[in-house]
Amino acid sequence: MKTEPLPIVTSLGRVLAKDVLCTRDVPPFDRSAVDGYAVKAEDVFGASETNPIVLNVKGKSSTGIIPDRVLEKGSTMQIATGAPMPRGADAVVMVEYTETTDSSRVEIYGTVTPGENVSLQGEDVKKNDLILKPGTFLKPQDIGILAALGVSEIDVMRKPRVGILSTGNELVSLGSEIPRGTIFDSNKPMLLSMVQLSGAEPIDLGTAIDVREDIAERLRAGLESTDMILTSGGTSVGERDLLPDTVNTLGSPGVLVHGVAMRPGRPVALCAVDEKPIILLPGFPVAALIAYDVFVEPIILRMLGASVGQNESPTIKARATRRIPSSPGIRSFVRGQVLRRNGATLFEPLRSAGSSVISSMVRANGMLVIPENKEGVEEGEEVVVRLLRTMEE
Amino acid sequence: MKTEPLPIVTSLGRVLAKDVLCTRDVPPFDRSAVDGYAVKAEDVFGASETNPIVLNVKGKSSTGIIPDRVLEKGSTMQIATGAPMPRGADAVVMVEYTETTDSSRVEIYGTVTPGENVSLQGEDVKKNDLILKPGTFLKPQDIGILAALGVSEIDVMRKPRVGILSTGNELVSLGSEIPRGTIFDSNKPMLLSMVQLSGAEPIDLGTAIDVREDIAERLRAGLESTDMILTSGGTSVGERDLLPDTVNTLGSPGVLVHGVAMRPGRPVALCAVDEKPIILLPGFPVAALIAYDVFVEPIILRMLGASVGQNESPTIKARATRRIPSSPGIRSFVRGQVLRRNGATLFEPLRSAGSSVISSMVRANGMLVIPENKEGVEEGEEVVVRLLRTMEE
Repeated sequence: MKTEPLPIVTSLGRVLAKDVLCTRDVPPFDRSAVDGYAVKAEDVFGASETNPIVLNVKGKSSTGIIPDRVLEKGSTMQIATGAPMPRGADAVVMVEYTETTDSSRVEIYGTVTPGENVSLQGEDVKKNDLILKPGTFLKPQDIGILAALGVSEIDVMRKPRVGILSTGNELVSLGSEIPRGTIFDSNKPMLLSMVQLSGAEPIDLGTAIDVREDIAERLRAGLESTDMILTSGGTSVGERDLLPDTVNTLGSPGVLVHGVAMRPGRPVALCAVDEKPIILLPGFPVAALIAYDVFVEPIILRMLGASVGQNESPTIKARATRRIPSSPGIRSFVRGQVLRRNGATLFEPLRSAGSSVISSMVRANGMLVIPENKEGVEEGEEVVVRLLRTMEE
Repeated sequence: MKTEPLPIVTSLGRVLAKDVLCTRDVPPFDRSAVDGYAVKAEDVFGASETNPIVLNVKGKSSTGIIPDRVLEKGSTMQIATGAPMPRGADAVVMVEYTETTDSSRVEIYGTVTPGENVSLQGEDVKKNDLILKPGTFLKPQDIGILAALGVSEIDVMRKPRVGILSTGNELVSLGSEIPRGTIFDSNKPMLLSMVQLSGAEPIDLGTAIDVREDIAERLRAGLESTDMILTSGGTSVGERDLLPDTVNTLGSPGVLVHGVAMRPGRPVALCAVDEKPIILLPGFPVAALIAYDVFVEPIILRMLGASVGQNESPTIKARATRRIPSSPGIRSFVRGQVLRRNGATLFEPLRSAGSSVISSMVRANGMLVIPENKEGVEEGEEVVVRLLRTMEE
């Protein structure tokens, strides 16, 4: 993927393309970490409540200005948090341990060691330190440190353009009249959102009817204008399943894998034409959602040079409330409810959860993956569940 | 907060304002869940590999059209996945268990029970079911189900407008020349991003110098144009700390809390003027970040009517690699590295992690909260750490 320059203030959630080396020290000068009095530590050695040491106040150091004055033995300067240290001073006594006697003198009640309450130039970040690595999804704190370094523009990965094509005579777009026998296309808006969350730019390639020419024309247009194409529908083995055949007419290698030992999501097909991935997602929404997570997001992350996504779901350990069957040799994705009951965390699989049951995606807050080498999960067995939504405690 | 109507395709990450009741059944008609043959189950009772039953094929049911024909005893219709069931049929035999003998006859090798491989009208969602609750941050699957229901527009909470004011003579905006003694303002771009992630709209109120009139004027303008104000800097007890005093001159109740038993973040102040919250965040970036999480995000979520955020960090159990001191009576937020070593998950606190050390936010991938009633964490003690970044495995 190509890169593009971007002001840091608009780079939230984008992927950094190049190393960011620090161009300056942070802090850029020695400064006070507290409000108080800048001193030579040796001048206040032994100071205490019962044995205060009196110093002469020679002005103050405010934020934003490097003081001209050099601190002499026996004297001090008032200093604000974040203000530059005057030359000659090596520590700051907190204001809480001082008392002003008159405008030119202060009593010091506490002892400090050299360096105490001082942030030294470069102690946070040194010039030429590597602070952020390419492949990082930029978070607010990253933008904060870039700003601290005076970096106003960075190179980020260009967002991969991901085309989305719906197929099926039965699909009607939102807002249209819906003749009986047809259904609204729910995968298109869902996939547009998922692509966005993965850090890519979704491109709507429209809806093709189940006719080879219409599908081929839209895929060809997609190959021109995008970096990757997702289709939904038309991938099982029925006679209307024109998608894999049509992809094979567009170029090589065409269909690489058709059918995967997972449930739901079995009919997914992985293809490539002109070095661009084309993923044929199943038409049933739950299957499309799961196949997206398993196959599409990793490809987008690879294009972005990111090792892990920015939206990884947290996992939680829970005990199955009942036996959950699964077929050996097939990886099963089980939707269910993560519940807290009497201090225990439980996973209750949804009863009605076929891949066509779109409400299962909304009713479930957790997903259990049963690996292909395991035959079901026993009642009471501890399992690791991916949280699909933040749990209300 | 007010609500606003929005097309569902642009509602990702917004908060639903009202119940969404289903206006129609999903599926909207009985349909086949597989490719195969629609039958009366009683017609194929007992069919097997060795004892196939032959049925007369009377046309086919394709997606998008309700078939006119009523299925008669002894006959079948070819049917595609998602196509409407013909009247008179109550099950579908998968194509894998059939063999076409000639164009008008098919051999059935498997038995089915009534309802098998059929998705009944309304089995997914019934008309008038409550499918999504107000306060939900909309995810791709929510947008999918709204589309399936034919909902093209929904009411979402208007984003709270959160004003951000930086204060301090020492601050220089990005892209400017930086005289010695000054620093770049890193909190402003960081807070702009954080407000965005919390689901609100950030408004830049500029940078005030440490002069009462300038601060007051900018806060007054902010109160006019926003729902909440964050300031950064100028909240500790030094003589330049004009913010709390200035807020008190703007209206009542003014400053409610100044100083909280947390570290970092102690100097935070919680205020309100004209029923609008004003949160005075500390100037040090780490303290600002933590005080934001503790005080600001919950207020934004409250304004949005959302019980939990959309960006909750996952937590992980880890063992402390060394003793971590903390002061009793103060809640401590400790940044560190979560590491995997020899199969164990460890938490290693950063050594240099004062609240002014902005690199600690980037170097840390985990945050440990030590409660105020606990005095430090022992070496090897198991603790729960919030993951600030997704871990590379």
